[in-house]
Amino acid sequence: MRARDLAEDYPLVKLSDNALDVARLIAEQRRPGVVVVDDDRKPVTVLPASQVLRFSVPGYVQEDPSLARVYDEQGGADVCVRKLSDRSVGEVLPPKEKRYELPMVTGDATVLECAATMARLHTPLIVVADHDRIHGVVTASHLLEVILNASESPA
Amino acid sequence: MRARDLAEDYPLVKLSDNALDVARLIAEQRRPGVVVVDDDRKPVTVLPASQVLRFSVPGYVQEDPSLARVYDEQGGADVCVRKLSDRSVGEVLPPKEKRYELPMVTGDATVLECAATMARLHTPLIVVADHDRIHGVVTASHLLEVILNASESPA
Repeated sequence: MRARDLAEDYPLVKLSDNALDVARLIAEQRRPGVVVVDDDRKPVTVLPASQVLRFSVPGYVQEDPSLARVYDEQGGADVCVRKLSDRSVGEVLPPKEKRYELPMVTGDATVLECAATMARLHTPLIVVADHDRIHGVVTASHLLEVILNASESPA
Repeated sequence: MRARDLAEDYPLVKLSDNALDVARLIAEQRRPGVVVVDDDRKPVTVLPASQVLRFSVPGYVQEDPSLARVYDEQGGADVCVRKLSDRSVGEVLPPKEKRYELPMVTGDATVLECAATMARLHTPLIVVADHDRIHGVVTASHLLEVILNASESPA
């Protein structure tokens, strides 16, 4: 079994997509994040859900979360939504030097190669792509399942 | 709405649990990780699925993933499973100084406080607990959903 056989569909968003729409996508599908691609569908980075929160929560509340109590529930939510509503995904990403290295393997990578790449980069998912054609994504939990099923070690 | 109302059940594992059993739990439930508690059910840290892979994949394969091809599929899987089979969760965790700071809020934390804590620690989930009684876990995507629903901003 190779990476391309394991790859599952995963939400891809463009750098130019609206950040609030992407927040809705993450919320509705309960994803930990999305893969960001450029206009040629070339993978760029991963946008974690926590980064969307980081962008939308006012800085002084992040520094001192007790300040969050100056807002009532709707007021706090409005502040967050307004910060996202006229932004693109590209604007919500961390600066380039702070972005996650995009974990990627080619379609013919073996199960153990996928595991090694994921282990080295401490990432919960890797993108499977050949020449910028994206096959999909493999998660760490899926890979563990494949490894446990493939092994005949008594355990 | 407060953190305790948002908290969802999440797999808790003990430091003394068998690492291979925990790998199976992560695989079966397709979780990105589990919360680790001590014998008094006091939360200790988060064990990400990628750390289980990191522990189980031989070091020389992590350094050079192309070496993974010296194994066939079952052989590679057997190596990984054997490394986990007689280990406890405590042995699989990174050394203390490299562990994730356990992101935690009290049951009465507001939505915006949860978001601020998650944003500050770049974490996809936070543990909700009072005096070491764990209410559950809130994920970043769930929190985005609550924020988007609470806001009346036109968007």
